[in-house]
Amino acid sequence: MPIPAEAFFIDRASTVPLQVQLRRQIIAGVLEGRFRPGERMPSARHMAGVLAVARVTVTQAYAELVAADYLTSRDRAGHFVSDRIEPLPPAPAPAAGGGFDWDAVLDTRLSRAERKDRVPDWRRYRYPFVYGQADPALVDHAAWRDCARRALGRREFVALTGDLYDSDDPELVDYILRHILPRRGIRAEADQVLLTLGAQNGLWLAAEVMLGGRTSLAAFEDPGYPGLRTILAQTGARLSAVAVDEAGLDPEAIPQGTSAVFTTASHHSPTGVAMSPARRARLLERAGAEGFAVIEDDYEFEMSFAGAPSPALKAMDAGGAVIHVGSFSKSVFPGLRLGYLVADRRVIHEARALRALTLRHPPGMLQRTLAHFLALGHYDTQMNRMRRVYAERRAEMARALVANGLVAGTPSARGGSSFWLATPGGIAADRLAAELRGRDVLIEPGAPFFTDPSRGAGFYRLAYSSIPAERIAEGIARIAAAARR
Amino acid sequence: MPIPAEAFFIDRASTVPLQVQLRRQIIAGVLEGRFRPGERMPSARHMAGVLAVARVTVTQAYAELVAADYLTSRDRAGHFVSDRIEPLPPAPAPAAGGGFDWDAVLDTRLSRAERKDRVPDWRRYRYPFVYGQADPALVDHAAWRDCARRALGRREFVALTGDLYDSDDPELVDYILRHILPRRGIRAEADQVLLTLGAQNGLWLAAEVMLGGRTSLAAFEDPGYPGLRTILAQTGARLSAVAVDEAGLDPEAIPQGTSAVFTTASHHSPTGVAMSPARRARLLERAGAEGFAVIEDDYEFEMSFAGAPSPALKAMDAGGAVIHVGSFSKSVFPGLRLGYLVADRRVIHEARALRALTLRHPPGMLQRTLAHFLALGHYDTQMNRMRRVYAERRAEMARALVANGLVAGTPSARGGSSFWLATPGGIAADRLAAELRGRDVLIEPGAPFFTDPSRGAGFYRLAYSSIPAERIAEGIARIAAAARR
Repeated sequence: MPIPAEAFFIDRASTVPLQVQLRRQIIAGVLEGRFRPGERMPSARHMAGVLAVARVTVTQAYAELVAADYLTSRDRAGHFVSDRIEPLPPAPAPAAGGGFDWDAVLDTRLSRAERKDRVPDWRRYRYPFVYGQADPALVDHAAWRDCARRALGRREFVALTGDLYDSDDPELVDYILRHILPRRGIRAEADQVLLTLGAQNGLWLAAEVMLGGRTSLAAFEDPGYPGLRTILAQTGARLSAVAVDEAGLDPEAIPQGTSAVFTTASHHSPTGVAMSPARRARLLERAGAEGFAVIEDDYEFEMSFAGAPSPALKAMDAGGAVIHVGSFSKSVFPGLRLGYLVADRRVIHEARALRALTLRHPPGMLQRTLAHFLALGHYDTQMNRMRRVYAERRAEMARALVANGLVAGTPSARGGSSFWLATPGGIAADRLAAELRGRDVLIEPGAPFFTDPSRGAGFYRLAYSSIPAERIAEGIARIAAAARR
Repeated sequence: MPIPAEAFFIDRASTVPLQVQLRRQIIAGVLEGRFRPGERMPSARHMAGVLAVARVTVTQAYAELVAADYLTSRDRAGHFVSDRIEPLPPAPAPAAGGGFDWDAVLDTRLSRAERKDRVPDWRRYRYPFVYGQADPALVDHAAWRDCARRALGRREFVALTGDLYDSDDPELVDYILRHILPRRGIRAEADQVLLTLGAQNGLWLAAEVMLGGRTSLAAFEDPGYPGLRTILAQTGARLSAVAVDEAGLDPEAIPQGTSAVFTTASHHSPTGVAMSPARRARLLERAGAEGFAVIEDDYEFEMSFAGAPSPALKAMDAGGAVIHVGSFSKSVFPGLRLGYLVADRRVIHEARALRALTLRHPPGMLQRTLAHFLALGHYDTQMNRMRRVYAERRAEMARALVANGLVAGTPSARGGSSFWLATPGGIAADRLAAELRGRDVLIEPGAPFFTDPSRGAGFYRLAYSSIPAERIAEGIARIAAAARR
C-alpha cells in the first residue's frame, strides 16, 4: 500500500529546516508502525509538489533516511520503508493522553446500559443456541450477489450514488406495498411507508416521534426486548411495564394516561406467545378511545410456519393508531440493516424528518439490491427454505427437550426461531450459561428480558436459527447434563 | 411477479363461507390494483396448504372468478389476473382514513424545519450548480463494482452478514487509522474511531453525546450548515450563533458557559474560509481552560487542491477536547452514507452505545466494500482525478465570474467544490434562483445558512462538483443575464 504524500505536513513558521521536519515525520511514522516495512514512499517529485518544497529537500531527506536504514532505495522503483527497523511498542496516542476532563461532562447512562451478555465470537462454538444470527447455509449468497451486481450496473449506479435527501428507493417501497404488507393483511400507500436501518432503527424512530421531548407515559411488555427498554429509557418518558401471559399483553393492565404502547403482538419476544384476537380488539378499542399509539414490532413474522399465519395488528387498525415496525434482518440476513415503518402519513412524515436529521437515508445501493432480491423471487425462495429448515429444527429441538426432561416455559405455537424455557428446579440461568460456555454450548439467560432481572433468573432462551439440526440433540444433552450438576 | 399465498387470510370465526372470503379478497386485490394484470395466482394446492382449507375451496373460488372475468386460466400454467378489469381509482387506504387524532399528539417541529429549497430532480437541469451531489463521470464505477464483488465473496459474506452488535469492520477502521487520518495530521487508535452513516450521522451522534438530556449551551457558526442547526435545535440545548469573518469563527465571540462549539475550521460552510492558526490555537486553549468540547466538521478536506493542505484542528488537539467528524460522501459518492468520528475513547464509547441504540451498525457489506476501495488505491486515484478536475472547473468558474462581473462574497483559498457569492446590487437570491430554474440553471440561495435568513438574502452558492467544465461559461452567463433583469 503506497504511503500518500498527504500524510506529511510542513510548518513554515517553524525554525526547524524543512528537510529535518520531513525526516522526523518519516521516522516517527516508521517507529510508530503507521508506515510498515515494504510500503512505498511517494516519489520525490510528487512529494515536493504536494508540500510545495524544492525537490532536493525531499531527495536529501530520503538519502539521509536510506543511510540511517529507515528506508531502502530500489533503482527506478523508488523508496520503501525498511524491514530492518523494529517499531516502538504502541504509545498512547496524543488524543487519549489529553487533559480534557471528559468524565465531568459525559453522560454515561447509555454505555452503562450496554448488554454484557453477548458473545461476538459465537461462530467458534459448536452448539450456538444464539438468537438473531444468520445461518450462512440458509442465505442464498449467490442470489444476493447477483442482485448486487444488477444494482451496481452503470445506469442504476448513477441514480443510487446521489444524495437522496430524505427519500427512499421507489422500487423497494413499491415491492413492500404490493408483496410484503399484503402478507400481513396491511394495505398502505407509498407515503405511509418509511425505510429504516433495520427494526432497531424503526423502534427508535417510532419512540422518538411519539415520546421525544414531551412528558409522556410509555407502556411496554415485561418480559420484553431489552433493546426497546434502553430506547424508551433515553426518551425521558415515564415507563410502565405491563405483564404478559399466555394470551399476550393484557390491554386492561395498561395504565390510564398512556401515550404509547409497544407490543410484539404476533409473536411475543422472548416467549413466543401470540396476543389473542379478543385482546387485540380491546387494545385497539382503548387506543382509539384514549388517544394512545400502538407500536407493533412485527419481528420474525415470516417464520410463522406452524399453523396458518394471522394478520398483523396493523391489519385490524381501522382507526389508524398503529405504527407497524418491520424488518428484513431475520428473513434476508441480520447484517443487512434494512426495515420499514408503516403508519399514518403524518407519523411517517415526522419520522422521515427525524431520519433525515440523524442519518439522511439508508444507503441507496443496498435498497436497490434488496428490491431486486425481492422482485426476482429470491426472498420467497429463501423464506420457504428457512421455514422448512426451522420446522425440522424445531421438531428436533422439541424431541430432544422432552427426551432430556427440559420443559418449555410457555407454549409458542406459531413457530419462530427459539424456545423460551424455565431451568430445571429454577436454577440460575446465568450460572448455567457460564458453565455451558466451557462445554462449547451457548444459551441465552433470561434475566435481561425482565425489568426486575431476578424474576428472569430461572429462564433461558434457546434459538435454533444458527445451529444445524444434527447438533441439536448433543447440544440439548449437554444443557441437561450441566443443569443436573 | 407471482402473487404469494401468504397475501390471503381466512377468518374462521366468520359466518361468511371460506370460498366467498377468498373470492372477495382476490376481487379486492384486483380492483385496488395490488394484483396487476398478468400476475400469477398461487396454485390451488399451494394456496389450500397455506390457508389450511380444502383444495376444492380454492379451485371453486378460482372457477367463479374466471367466469366473472377477474382471472384467466391457462392450461397447465395456472391462473392469472385478467387484463380486462379496470382497477378502481386509488381509494385512501384504511390506515390513512382512520379516526386517530395524530394532530393532537404529534410534535411537528422537525418536519416544519425541513428544507424546501432542494431540487431532487437536479439531473434534469443543464446547468446544475448544486452542492454536494456526485458527478458520475468522476466516480470510478468499475472499481467500486470490483470492490463490491470482493466483499460479496463467500468467505467475507459469511463474516459480514451477521449482526455485528456494536462493532465495526476492523479492516476499514485500520485503513482509516493508517491512511486517512495521517493526511489530516491525526494519530489515533482503534477505540478512538467510530464508523457512522455519513457526516450527518456523525454530527448528530456528537451533538447528542455532548448536549442530549442536559442544560447545555451550544455555539455554532453563523452562517453555517443548516442541517447542523436542525440537529442542535432538537437537542433542547440553548444555542449561541457565532459570527464568521475572513479568518473563520472568532474564539473570543464564544460565550462563557459554552458546552460545545461546532466548527468547520478547515473549510467553512458555506463561505470556504479557513480558520487562522492563531484562532485555532486560541479556540483549543479556551476549550481546555473552560472545559467545552470542539466538534470539528472536516467535510471536504480531500478537495483542498489549491495550496498545501493544513492539518485538522484535531491534529493540534493535545488536550483531547476535539471530536473530529469525517465523511466519505464527497470523495467516494454521496449516497454511500459512511463516515467516522475520531475522539477521546470515552466519547467514542458513548457514541457507540448511542449508535447501537438507534441503528446498531452501518451495513457490514458496505464497510468492507469501502475498505477494499481504499486499500486497493482506488480512493487515491479517484481523489487525484477529482482534485484535478475541480481545479480546472474552479479556474473556469473564476474566469467566467470575472468576465460576467459577478464577484465572490469571500475568498476561499483552499479549493473545495463551490464559490460563495454576493448577488449584484444585493438583489434577492431566492428570486434569482426561481428565475434561473426556468432557464435550466440551478443555484443555491444563501438564506438557509443564516439564523436570520434576511441577512443571507443577498448571497448564493455556486458548486461545480456536478457541472462539466464546458457548460460553466454559459451557465454563469445566464446567471449574470438574469441578475441584470
